[in-house]
Amino acid sequence: MIPQWIIEQKRDGGILEDSDIRAFIDGFTDGTIPDYQMSALAMAIFFKGMTDAETTILTDAMMRSGDLVDFKGWPRPTADKHSTGGIGDKLSLMIAPLAASAGLAIPMISGRGLGITGGTLDKLESIPGYNTRLSIDEFKRVIADVGCSIIGQTKHLAPADKKLYALRDVTGTVPSIPLITASIMSKKLAEGAETLVFDVKCGRAAFMKSPEQARALAESLTRVGSALHRKTAAVITDMNQPLGRTAGNAIEVIEAVETLRGKGPADTRLLTIELTAQITALSGIHPDLDTARCELTKHLDSGRALEVFRRMVMAQGGDPRFIDDPTALPQPGYTLEVRATSNGYVADVDALAIGRIVLQLGGGRTKTDDVIDPSSGIDSLVQQGDHIEKGQPLMRLLAKNKSLAESQLNIALASITLTPVNPGMRKLILDRLL
Amino acid sequence: MIPQWIIEQKRDGGILEDSDIRAFIDGFTDGTIPDYQMSALAMAIFFKGMTDAETTILTDAMMRSGDLVDFKGWPRPTADKHSTGGIGDKLSLMIAPLAASAGLAIPMISGRGLGITGGTLDKLESIPGYNTRLSIDEFKRVIADVGCSIIGQTKHLAPADKKLYALRDVTGTVPSIPLITASIMSKKLAEGAETLVFDVKCGRAAFMKSPEQARALAESLTRVGSALHRKTAAVITDMNQPLGRTAGNAIEVIEAVETLRGKGPADTRLLTIELTAQITALSGIHPDLDTARCELTKHLDSGRALEVFRRMVMAQGGDPRFIDDPTALPQPGYTLEVRATSNGYVADVDALAIGRIVLQLGGGRTKTDDVIDPSSGIDSLVQQGDHIEKGQPLMRLLAKNKSLAESQLNIALASITLTPVNPGMRKLILDRLL
Repeated sequence: MIPQWIIEQKRDGGILEDSDIRAFIDGFTDGTIPDYQMSALAMAIFFKGMTDAETTILTDAMMRSGDLVDFKGWPRPTADKHSTGGIGDKLSLMIAPLAASAGLAIPMISGRGLGITGGTLDKLESIPGYNTRLSIDEFKRVIADVGCSIIGQTKHLAPADKKLYALRDVTGTVPSIPLITASIMSKKLAEGAETLVFDVKCGRAAFMKSPEQARALAESLTRVGSALHRKTAAVITDMNQPLGRTAGNAIEVIEAVETLRGKGPADTRLLTIELTAQITALSGIHPDLDTARCELTKHLDSGRALEVFRRMVMAQGGDPRFIDDPTALPQPGYTLEVRATSNGYVADVDALAIGRIVLQLGGGRTKTDDVIDPSSGIDSLVQQGDHIEKGQPLMRLLAKNKSLAESQLNIALASITLTPVNPGMRKLILDRLL
Repeated sequence: MIPQWIIEQKRDGGILEDSDIRAFIDGFTDGTIPDYQMSALAMAIFFKGMTDAETTILTDAMMRSGDLVDFKGWPRPTADKHSTGGIGDKLSLMIAPLAASAGLAIPMISGRGLGITGGTLDKLESIPGYNTRLSIDEFKRVIADVGCSIIGQTKHLAPADKKLYALRDVTGTVPSIPLITASIMSKKLAEGAETLVFDVKCGRAAFMKSPEQARALAESLTRVGSALHRKTAAVITDMNQPLGRTAGNAIEVIEAVETLRGKGPADTRLLTIELTAQITALSGIHPDLDTARCELTKHLDSGRALEVFRRMVMAQGGDPRFIDDPTALPQPGYTLEVRATSNGYVADVDALAIGRIVLQLGGGRTKTDDVIDPSSGIDSLVQQGDHIEKGQPLMRLLAKNKSLAESQLNIALASITLTPVNPGMRKLILDRLL
């Protein structure tokens, strides 16, 4: 295998051989193929794409670059959900325990936030004592005991992806559907889950801006998953506006607990049930989606899902007091209510602006080694269709101090659009690939 | 300047800023921009191209990455010729002394052969004692004394090109007209010549296979040259068939001497005069092309150009005896005549096959550190339009030994096509850009 021949073949629109893709990834992982050849190939893939068969082999090769978690012989079916990332997206915190409460085993390996996109790990780490760095053996033990576990990526899981992702980030080769697919799927498949449900976010605060792009990624993910013998489904959801009424870290954990208690904002509850229903129906736990939705609603309303969450937190070393007393989580030094300057119905909440405010308040990272402030963020956020009188709060800014909060006031005001006529609730689920 | 933003801008079809191109090349040259970002940018340029203005800045930045030879204040105008490379192309050996004999100063920095393409330096090094590694001061002294000098690239001349060329070679980013243009022009401009004439080869043994590709490269070269205040012209010449009746190293020097003596094959003589006429007319040495062709013919036929060649060889330490006695050059251990198996007119000589035979006989390199056998090659090669009787020689293989020569016999036979009807001489000059 001559690496430059493979690059030239893809550059000229050719279809790469199974053995060539695997040799390239193996060589890249062990360092015998230098970064400059991998980045040139990634750019050629950006322009010329890959067939589903090529993407599947690329995914499989990247998955096999490290350890594979093995759940063979386990009594419960295994499943996981993956979101492409958005603002206020705390769904993993509810879906893992809810799916586990229905009888599934949920091995969930999550990421940290970067830029405006939040990360499940950062949210969980706002819980005092919660350990996201379990070994694979500890991870499996928690899943066996509780039904679910949420941890961070270990360095032995899909190392080819870790290396390729860092390279793509600095070589303009991030927005390529085959490369995104292989990156997401190689990690998810290495986790060992038999069923995978994808929440592909679409809109101005999402990686995929248009429904066409989101659909293309969703199709790529589900086709590659099927080709690699997993049960897959995808839901395309709106990310022009944030999910729920909170954005940040500790504050999102509080909203997650509310939702797990059978309350919480309607959109958050809806997507929690919908995505979990996709998982349980596909896994065969429930006979169909309607039954699944109905059963899962019961598990939320009875507090059964919340109990699984509590047990997971405790199994991973977390102090569960916050579940009954939100003040047990880190508290902001200052809160500022952003008040409406006119009457009207909320027609738009700009998720991109909300994401940037949270970032500015210290709740996100601009570089991977930034330290976040878990207490900062936004709560009491209005949603499309809410009726607001002049002087009523549009949101509350949670910050370390007054000046930081006030620096975001005008941006916060500008992020909300009011209209005289009720626009109704937004369409949250844009498409489903079953 | 954030390198990945530049890459993304080009990837998305944008036009790069002057300062961004220069900062990228400077960073690549000094190592602060890693190879993996340069290769990704090169691949984006392969797909999205560059405007003439961008290519001009890229060329200028690469030229300025190292030393610039300066001929300011010299009494004679300076000029050079560049060929994109072919089989049997010994034109530099005649054009440099012929142009010098007409009153120009010719600073010629040449390359080595790689693959099927021969290199002027290798040919000159078959002359015992000839030193191609002069310092820039020695180079200028020879030009001042003799009128011309042919040496190899020093490591201080356009180092960005040296580094980028090596990277492009292994990342599938060679065939890009802006990158080829910047590579050729940055070296040629650093030489300091005021007039540049390009011989863009076109055909199966050339880098540019089609007349359209050759024309596009020729246009890019002349436009960038003009933008950087040089007088430029380009001639597109056929490289489906070899040039002249020899291919190799020592054997091409012999044919060059024949041509400089006013003899030599018609095609070799024609292109020597034509390309040199472009140079002298453009430089203002001759008032027009017709006068130039006429005067230069006299310089060939009178032996004046040959005398310049003799003095250049001596000035660079070469033993000039080979000029009157070809056996003073390295001699092959074995020669094998390839004889026609039928009667007919030569309709085609496959330059690609001839190039491969020379390579197999030891006259070329497959890797840059291969050592070549200067005595091997081909002579007495037939040309299109020649009439051949069965049993007459089609070419003579010059090799180290009998078995090496015989290994190429069938390939050599297959490289010549005979037809019953005279196809006439081939069209050698396909296009001119003046």
